Amino acid sequence: MDRRSYMKGMGAALASYAVASGAKEQPAMESSREHLTKAEFDQLFKQLSNWGRWGKGDQLGTLNLITPARRREAAALVREGVCVSLARDLNEEKSVDNPDPLLDVMNLGVDGKFNMDTYTVNFHGFAFSHFDALSHTYYEGRLYNGYPDSNITSSGAKVLDAAKYYDGIFARGVLIDIPWLRGLPYLPTDALITAHELDQWEEKTGEHIHSGDAILIRTGRWAFREAKGPWDIANASAGLAPSAMVWLHQREAAFMVSDCAHDALPAPVEGVDFPIHVLAIVAMGMPLADQCNLEDVAREARKLNRQTFLLTLAPERIKGGTGSLVNPIATF
Amino acid sequence: MDRRSYMKGMGAALASYAVASGAKEQPAMESSREHLTKAEFDQLFKQLSNWGRWGKGDQLGTLNLITPARRREAAALVREGVCVSLARDLNEEKSVDNPDPLLDVMNLGVDGKFNMDTYTVNFHGFAFSHFDALSHTYYEGRLYNGYPDSNITSSGAKVLDAAKYYDGIFARGVLIDIPWLRGLPYLPTDALITAHELDQWEEKTGEHIHSGDAILIRTGRWAFREAKGPWDIANASAGLAPSAMVWLHQREAAFMVSDCAHDALPAPVEGVDFPIHVLAIVAMGMPLADQCNLEDVAREARKLNRQTFLLTLAPERIKGGTGSLVNPIATF
Amino acid sequence: MDRRSYMKGMGAALASYAVASGAKEQPAMESSREHLTKAEFDQLFKQLSNWGRWGKGDQLGTLNLITPARRREAAALVREGVCVSLARDLNEEKSVDNPDPLLDVMNLGVDGKFNMDTYTVNFHGFAFSHFDALSHTYYEGRLYNGYPDSNITSSGAKVLDAAKYYDGIFARGVLIDIPWLRGLPYLPTDALITAHELDQWEEKTGEHIHSGDAILIRTGRWAFREAKGPWDIANASAGLAPSAMVWLHQREAAFMVSDCAHDALPAPVEGVDFPIHVLAIVAMGMPLADQCNLEDVAREARKLNRQTFLLTLAPERIKGGTGSLVNPIATF
Amino acid sequence: MDRRSYMKGMGAALASYAVASGAKEQPAMESSREHLTKAEFDQLFKQLSNWGRWGKGDQLGTLNLITPARRREAAALVREGVCVSLARDLNEEKSVDNPDPLLDVMNLGVDGKFNMDTYTVNFHGFAFSHFDALSHTYYEGRLYNGYPDSNITSSGAKVLDAAKYYDGIFARGVLIDIPWLRGLPYLPTDALITAHELDQWEEKTGEHIHSGDAILIRTGRWAFREAKGPWDIANASAGLAPSAMVWLHQREAAFMVSDCAHDALPAPVEGVDFPIHVLAIVAMGMPLADQCNLEDVAREARKLNRQTFLLTLAPERIKGGTGSLVNPIATF
Repeated sequence: MDRRSYMKGMGAALASYAVASGAKEQPAMESSREHLTKAEFDQLFKQLSNWGRWGKGDQLGTLNLITPARRREAAALVREGVCVSLARDLNEEKSVDNPDPLLDVMNLGVDGKFNMDTYTVNFHGFAFSHFDALSHTYYEGRLYNGYPDSNITSSGAKVLDAAKYYDGIFARGVLIDIPWLRGLPYLPTDALITAHELDQWEEKTGEHIHSGDAILIRTGRWAFREAKGPWDIANASAGLAPSAMVWLHQREAAFMVSDCAHDALPAPVEGVDFPIHVLAIVAMGMPLADQCNLEDVAREARKLNRQTFLLTLAPERIKGGTGSLVNPIATF
Repeated sequence: MDRRSYMKGMGAALASYAVASGAKEQPAMESSREHLTKAEFDQLFKQLSNWGRWGKGDQLGTLNLITPARRREAAALVREGVCVSLARDLNEEKSVDNPDPLLDVMNLGVDGKFNMDTYTVNFHGFAFSHFDALSHTYYEGRLYNGYPDSNITSSGAKVLDAAKYYDGIFARGVLIDIPWLRGLPYLPTDALITAHELDQWEEKTGEHIHSGDAILIRTGRWAFREAKGPWDIANASAGLAPSAMVWLHQREAAFMVSDCAHDALPAPVEGVDFPIHVLAIVAMGMPLADQCNLEDVAREARKLNRQTFLLTLAPERIKGGTGSLVNPIATF
Repeated sequence: MDRRSYMKGMGAALASYAVASGAKEQPAMESSREHLTKAEFDQLFKQLSNWGRWGKGDQLGTLNLITPARRREAAALVREGVCVSLARDLNEEKSVDNPDPLLDVMNLGVDGKFNMDTYTVNFHGFAFSHFDALSHTYYEGRLYNGYPDSNITSSGAKVLDAAKYYDGIFARGVLIDIPWLRGLPYLPTDALITAHELDQWEEKTGEHIHSGDAILIRTGRWAFREAKGPWDIANASAGLAPSAMVWLHQREAAFMVSDCAHDALPAPVEGVDFPIHVLAIVAMGMPLADQCNLEDVAREARKLNRQTFLLTLAPERIKGGTGSLVNPIATF
Repeated sequence: MDRRSYMKGMGAALASYAVASGAKEQPAMESSREHLTKAEFDQLFKQLSNWGRWGKGDQLGTLNLITPARRREAAALVREGVCVSLARDLNEEKSVDNPDPLLDVMNLGVDGKFNMDTYTVNFHGFAFSHFDALSHTYYEGRLYNGYPDSNITSSGAKVLDAAKYYDGIFARGVLIDIPWLRGLPYLPTDALITAHELDQWEEKTGEHIHSGDAILIRTGRWAFREAKGPWDIANASAGLAPSAMVWLHQREAAFMVSDCAHDALPAPVEGVDFPIHVLAIVAMGMPLADQCNLEDVAREARKLNRQTFLLTLAPERIKGGTGSLVNPIATF
């Protein structure tokens, strides 16, 4: 891969970073070069934009990259016949990273035969494994593919809503386990995952990201929480650097799953506080699965020495919704 | 298949039915023999019971039949690489078959960047495509595997809850399209699907149900609703006859999906109003997916002339819950 | 008051209790005589029944006792012009006495001008100050006034629902502060408040309960919780003895408010676990306000040396509902 | 009343309106003069501001005007002893003016004795009778009394939340029935209620608005809906003109109740779409009860020929909330 090419068009800061990273600098120095001005970010937004790529009326974005052929290849990865959930149990306990716990009201003994329950969930945020439809995020008044954000009203999203993804995602899943790469149990909360580090991961594992892949980015967030308790992750989270999005765009990744919000927080972009959400969802048209459980799949991947598997995920068909709870499954 | 054997132990009414059905009687006459007394039903319950089969502490029931080998075989069915949702869009309109519509409250412009929504759903019942965990149904004070129903409290289900199925279902799916078999667009609301009719389906299609299969039973309920509007389906629904459960038990079906509640309503059993739920969930330990959308998969099946495919389904991980919304996917 | 008369018709246990209590026995001994068999309870149910008293179709029960004249008298009690809430802040923290916390989802910056929120509440139980409509409780298949419980369906209560009380309650409120009477900060969790103790309260305060009064029974539950933390109040709560209901029935109390569920738990009646709910709501047709905050009003009452005031309360107009959150107000 | 004085400081348009209205012009012409530029509105905001009036830390706003003396006077208005609800039954049917119907999930037969229900409500908007706490609205980044809007977070309102009004409102209520004044069953949706019209109402009825009064402004919205069905009231509603707020501010009204959102929609102010909400809630610190039922109270008022009564209202104690459902009661 020609690192200069994917930096083409970015601002001076990233350009010099590109050169520097070719020189194998330390991550610490490198990450200081990941900070973008608003103008540089806007330039990057244009560079990564898929608006119009799949037609003026397209609402599926990068999911278009998951073709029938890719699905067949993904199915062929099922060798051990072992399924692993990428969701966490839904959290009913209030905490600093869960201001609106799941409310699940039981209803017992209906007709002397049935137990039932009703749940209420504010699923976005930092507590629940969930799917972000493309209606979830906008930038400067526009959703993916240039749809005005005015399409999203108090009656629901008229475009890019959760129900659009009714047939789900069926793709090759690739686990990129960064703590494992760095030899840590989990990343520190200020870690930035750069394009350079993704290169290193490919080099170490011998795997390559292909068009239509679903990428799982592990930061070890839940292992961190297990060890140290909940913290204000909205203001202190490891995550992807903008350069990682350039890398993923070039390789034509179709979907991303993370154990955090994908975004490093606070964000390394001046005046844009969730730049990865903006680049992925708005510019590229890539839906996301946030706050997933990547601990179990990481254990299985290490045990089997496999980083790839079939990834299946099916959002709830909420017409007008901006996403839903989801339980993605890795099948080895 | 020896029809006499699977009727062994049932009451006199069903025994004579078994003989009669061997004689290829009319379904109308046959279905009159599907009506059971309470004592016959209790006998049938014992006959179909899987309590203890997978150990005293088992909570997965017939999902144990979906082995890694079965999963590999199921994955190998992905040939066209086409995914089809088995869920319906979640219904937000009150109607006779939807007393508690999905409530989805929008939350726009959060941080000048995000659209969000919060949903509340009483998912059991007749309106939403959903998963029934084994904690959903009990019979005479007992859940599957003999767990007392007192395990289900207002704080949640301590056993057999939705979160137990975290790794989801990954199995061979087989569509049994009864209206197609009968040459109808949809079944009348008093139709009973008997073991005899399942035999006929196997004969006509040349397919055989195997251990670990996920069976999709289409009654055409949504086509009926499309044609005639919503009706009080709680009191008028096509569904399975008790003999069908004997048949499915013998073949070791692992899971069932239907476009209604599986149960014929009113039920043909004296004093037991959802006998199929009781037999499947409580006796056999077979979770169910109710009220699914089988119209799209039926179209695809006819188009491809395929009744089998990969079925994937992953319930939400609601600890203590009795099921969840679900969007099962058939992949051809 | 002739204590023998109000015991007329109760079982032998209570009759002997009545004689004994005339002899000024100790409360501890007395309370042992408050334990009823099922047959004695059923006898008491009949004795206290108001079925038919206000007509066959009546749905207001004892609220009929609050006449325009009573309302005028109640309004005349406003002398200081001081209002005191009888509700608690709605609890959003899960605890042993709050399995389903209030869920309140914020929605900020709507139209650049409005902050909003959506709340979900399972209001019955032990956590929230709430109103019990007469549809909330039944006994042996019957609601107040003999309505079959089948009137309450999954679509809502067709009779005796919360919306029936649309014009609210406007009555003389009388605080009966039992811990104050006993010289304690709060009652022990096994305390039974008997008719005898209510007599003592009248004697000490010089107040008399009249027809149409709204009675506030303080056990000090919230002071107990403040001192010792939440506990499993469903299984350990001070409350009213059955004899207290005889006393209140004779005096024609119209409404009751308590800081607990009114019922002593576990209940002193064989085979009937919330006997006070059954007697008040089902037999007498008296709605209740449970789990209210009586700490602030008790302080004000002591400060002003007044036990009576105007009590206003207006349930939410939930058609088909069994009650609602409520914030009753005492105005001195 | 000196009309010139209350217009002092408003822009040229209103000044000339003031002169003109002194000349008893037609309402139609007058209302054209009610249209304000943004600059005129900002001037008016300053004129009506109560920031600092009751101290820097005040959170009660105009409710401070309801003194113990006012409460005693209000209680003395109870002469007939008749209570009338000012709420509507909570709407469970989706419609153009009710995008998020109340969801009420029943839970029957709990412990063989109790019927329960759980409700979810997005109470602001145009469908439900509700209370607006002062945290509900902000203007140019500020809440009432200058609190920055950043006090309202996704965890709740840290200031001016619903629970602040725990002791409720107990005041003289005055019904200003504008359709009655105009001889109409209900106002047209483009009607503007001006200061001039409020003068006319005082003249006709002989009543005068005093400090601490709770004003009920009837537009006849529900009679209109009854006659013609629901419409998009968010874009077509009768309501108060800005001059009415000047009038109410001068008279020191403490609280307002309306059968719509108080605001005329679309609003007659350039660039400010709910100017009455902004003036009342943000500038004056006056909470509101929106979307109330004023049909029943209007009937009672006409029957008794009384425009004044005791108004009681108690919001739910939602800590951090921006208001709640409410059932205000008028007692004659």
